[in-house]
Amino acid sequence: MTPKISRFLAEQQPATPCLVVDLDVVESNYRALHDALPAGKIYYAIKANPAPSILKRLVALGSSFDAASLEEIRMCLKAGATPDRISYGNTLKKVGAIREARDMGIDLFVLDSMEELEKIAENAPGARVFCRLAVENEGADWPLSRKFGTTIAHARDLMIRARDLGLHPYGLSFHVGSQQTGIAAYQHAIATAARLYHELRAEGLDLQMINLGGGFPTHYREDIPSVQEFGAAIQAALREYFPDGQPEVLLEPGRYMVGQAGVVSSEVILVSRRGGAETDPRWVYLDIGRFGGLAETEGEAIRYTFRTSRDDTDNSRSPCVVAGPSCDGVDILYEKNRIPLPNSLKSGDRIEILATGAYVSTYCSVGFNGFPPLTEHYI
Amino acid sequence: MTPKISRFLAEQQPATPCLVVDLDVVESNYRALHDALPAGKIYYAIKANPAPSILKRLVALGSSFDAASLEEIRMCLKAGATPDRISYGNTLKKVGAIREARDMGIDLFVLDSMEELEKIAENAPGARVFCRLAVENEGADWPLSRKFGTTIAHARDLMIRARDLGLHPYGLSFHVGSQQTGIAAYQHAIATAARLYHELRAEGLDLQMINLGGGFPTHYREDIPSVQEFGAAIQAALREYFPDGQPEVLLEPGRYMVGQAGVVSSEVILVSRRGGAETDPRWVYLDIGRFGGLAETEGEAIRYTFRTSRDDTDNSRSPCVVAGPSCDGVDILYEKNRIPLPNSLKSGDRIEILATGAYVSTYCSVGFNGFPPLTEHYI
Repeated sequence: MTPKISRFLAEQQPATPCLVVDLDVVESNYRALHDALPAGKIYYAIKANPAPSILKRLVALGSSFDAASLEEIRMCLKAGATPDRISYGNTLKKVGAIREARDMGIDLFVLDSMEELEKIAENAPGARVFCRLAVENEGADWPLSRKFGTTIAHARDLMIRARDLGLHPYGLSFHVGSQQTGIAAYQHAIATAARLYHELRAEGLDLQMINLGGGFPTHYREDIPSVQEFGAAIQAALREYFPDGQPEVLLEPGRYMVGQAGVVSSEVILVSRRGGAETDPRWVYLDIGRFGGLAETEGEAIRYTFRTSRDDTDNSRSPCVVAGPSCDGVDILYEKNRIPLPNSLKSGDRIEILATGAYVSTYCSVGFNGFPPLTEHYI
Repeated sequence: MTPKISRFLAEQQPATPCLVVDLDVVESNYRALHDALPAGKIYYAIKANPAPSILKRLVALGSSFDAASLEEIRMCLKAGATPDRISYGNTLKKVGAIREARDMGIDLFVLDSMEELEKIAENAPGARVFCRLAVENEGADWPLSRKFGTTIAHARDLMIRARDLGLHPYGLSFHVGSQQTGIAAYQHAIATAARLYHELRAEGLDLQMINLGGGFPTHYREDIPSVQEFGAAIQAALREYFPDGQPEVLLEPGRYMVGQAGVVSSEVILVSRRGGAETDPRWVYLDIGRFGGLAETEGEAIRYTFRTSRDDTDNSRSPCVVAGPSCDGVDILYEKNRIPLPNSLKSGDRIEILATGAYVSTYCSVGFNGFPPLTEHYI
């Protein structure tokens, strides 16, 4: 938690639950990645947090953008990005959305299937397209490989067919999975993509780009490699697999860029030993849960850090089940991985949940159980 | 799908994704449950679908309401319900919410823990309270017993303590789990609650009510017992375990009341054989997924029925993985339980998802991936 956020929470005492994001952290993350991997062009994955103030700050820094939908493209344009800095990075696009994006000047589209390719060829003739490869997601806390990406063999067919349909087969992409903490995942994926890249160029296709996707981790509880370590390893892999000169390299960081910039401030609604006995596990119920934005606690995949208003005055700790405020039985954040919390914790206490700047504000439900959407503060 | 919904979809061709709810089905479900179990007072579980037109229709029919939050209480009052017809049915309530509910005239609160009891005693002095027991949820597709309810022994302590704190220990509740298809679950739970009920009355407490909770199923794919069968079995259990006269009986149906009243109309964004070969499984991507409202497909727990615009003209079928439109890897509806869909299905085709009136509109995210919340039509 940055001093700016601490001060804001102390002085404003905002109603909970709310998300507070320090925009300076977003900026320093952008600069750190840019410095660690100068060859990479940063396309911020808007879906991680599409707040206008984040988009504007990144526009000013020179970032490009990875949009998941027509609505996200509109948000970027509104924040001041020019169409040449926007990639339509969802392999799933309605025909009308492709056409409208093209009309707005978007010229870079992803695909991983024949039907999508034909839709793009018909509705965005001549556009640059890149094909997403399915690669190993081992080491990622939030894998993405089951739903997206295709085989090397099919990617080859798609790129050749793209050329035949008048599109510009521009490059290849992959995604090593979100919150990927293994550097080797990038190295393997670059090796795989490079082989096909060289093969297609040898066949006369004008490929120029490799998109390394996102996945760069943010710091939750466990230690993660630094962005410098990722940068150095990726640079080395690019030198090794593209010995005759590097292609244009795209990066799509989302979680990395905004995760640590945000803190959720919440309130304890209830502390309960469900059976009434001192030996029963303590359940701590917060005013935010899986349907208030903390969707990535599904399967306890993303493990946040908690700070309570009693941390400084009470050193005693015991492991607690932590759950959300709704009447839903699946609205439990951590049950297997219990959270050590002060024994004096009780209803009305504040709890800050750290590194919640990514994938929280938009996952939030419109009003499950009547609870209004998360309030957001960008400072 | 009712003729009224079919006509609406055919004539209006509303933009997808959208939810269309036939209010007459809600009314007939209310009447059927009322007829099947005349001794039960119906408290509609608002969280299943809080649309104002549903609440107004139920107010007119004489229903009472089970509210999960202060906001839901306000919705009921706005729809014309008087405070005596509202139960604050969430075991998790902020102190401020208890006080405000009390100020609005709410006089019935649930609890399952000592801290909640003390909060209610202090902020809603003299109110009627009931204690939620943890009961077996076997047979339910969406269990609720891990997060809520307490033991018989602790419930006894809580009710006695409630009296000592000046509250009116009014009754006992349980929840057999949502989409509960086993009639025996109610019978066992009634037996358990009845034992404690008689015991507490013998100790001089003025208990008057048993709240059977919700859980009554709606028809998805598998056959379910009729509401008449549930009603008869529950009546028999009440006669058996309350031989000297029945207590006030509360029912909290949510899914049962609105599930079959609704249809989601969606569009196919992409049909893809991910590896390109005819032998690869077909993936069908829709413009609605887990974050667009179909949250209960988590773990493939709730299994909806699909109707496509090609059903009448194409008899061929093959099992498909069905997924949502977002860039999220967990946004997959059915992968283990594949859906047989026409082989000619393609991008742009319409798909209707049946029995989606419950727990869809409010689970929907505020804007994940930029997609706007689900449009709703109540007819």
